[in-house]
Amino acid sequence: MRKHDYPVDDIRQYLEPGPIVLVSSAWKGQTNIMTMGWHMVMGEEPSLVGCFIWDQNHSFDMIRKSRECVINVPAVDLATTVVGIGNTSGRDIDKFATFKLTAVKGRKVNAPLIEECHANFECRLVDSTLINRYSLFVFEVVKGHARVKPRFPKTLHYRGDGRFMIAGPTVSRYRKGFKPEMLRQ
Amino acid sequence: MRKHDYPVDDIRQYLEPGPIVLVSSAWKGQTNIMTMGWHMVMGEEPSLVGCFIWDQNHSFDMIRKSRECVINVPAVDLATTVVGIGNTSGRDIDKFATFKLTAVKGRKVNAPLIEECHANFECRLVDSTLINRYSLFVFEVVKGHARVKPRFPKTLHYRGDGRFMIAGPTVSRYRKGFKPEMLRQ
Repeated sequence: MRKHDYPVDDIRQYLEPGPIVLVSSAWKGQTNIMTMGWHMVMGEEPSLVGCFIWDQNHSFDMIRKSRECVINVPAVDLATTVVGIGNTSGRDIDKFATFKLTAVKGRKVNAPLIEECHANFECRLVDSTLINRYSLFVFEVVKGHARVKPRFPKTLHYRGDGRFMIAGPTVSRYRKGFKPEMLRQ
Repeated sequence: MRKHDYPVDDIRQYLEPGPIVLVSSAWKGQTNIMTMGWHMVMGEEPSLVGCFIWDQNHSFDMIRKSRECVINVPAVDLATTVVGIGNTSGRDIDKFATFKLTAVKGRKVNAPLIEECHANFECRLVDSTLINRYSLFVFEVVKGHARVKPRFPKTLHYRGDGRFMIAGPTVSRYRKGFKPEMLRQ
């Protein structure tokens, strides 16, 4: 599936709706992937994302030391993979191999992109001062990639307790005839 | 619509999926409401939420000075109201009156709850040190309220540019027979 370059100042289109993402990293010849649900857009120019990464995650040190990662946005076709990645540790397994995912070389970072995800955002750690206090990593997105179709993928949104909300339709308030009442509550 | 007390350590069920929320505040006899899409869960015990509030928002000073707010989770029936609140300023209008919303007294904070929203989380500002650098307010949720039904409301998830994703179905990976492949991509 072909991907195009995606503007780094418009990542909110994918991240502001709050999908669960897969964070890939590389350090000393090893790669890893973790699931992440606690993240937020923190700015557009520069393009900043705040990410909560628990210090018990194997990825924690890999990202803190390499100061890089890739935020990958999976769609619902990867639901089983997302659950599997969230329930295993990079201490024990090679996640790319175990989950048959394709690592693609980043353009601006050494962390690998996950080809099977809808969008990939290459990130550099720009502020590590909040890691000790809040496990909060502040990244700048330095390069974006996204599939051309579908425009709005059915992303997964985690609720805790093993439950995922699957993204429904995207509507525009500019679109003629949009009546929220038409969408059944 | 009846609401029950909602445990503050389980707000991720509503907030981690990333809905647009309405933030209500009170200061010196005035109330206000703003829309907010940039927020993240930052902890469960205590229950922490990080919120990006732009310093040009009328709510910015009201929340910074009162050190309180309520995070209200609207469902799709309030879509037109959400857009209206996002496109107006509390400098010019009384948002509760203009949008015919019901202000309910908070149990632990002076900021009013919005009755018409599915869930309401009363918040106290516990860390103001990141406001200048990142417009980041760190709140502790001190009291939660939520409607009993529906269990998973159709929340609105903002993509920028006037586009909203409407929450689709919630599925459990524990539910027998859940096959993500069954959900059309």
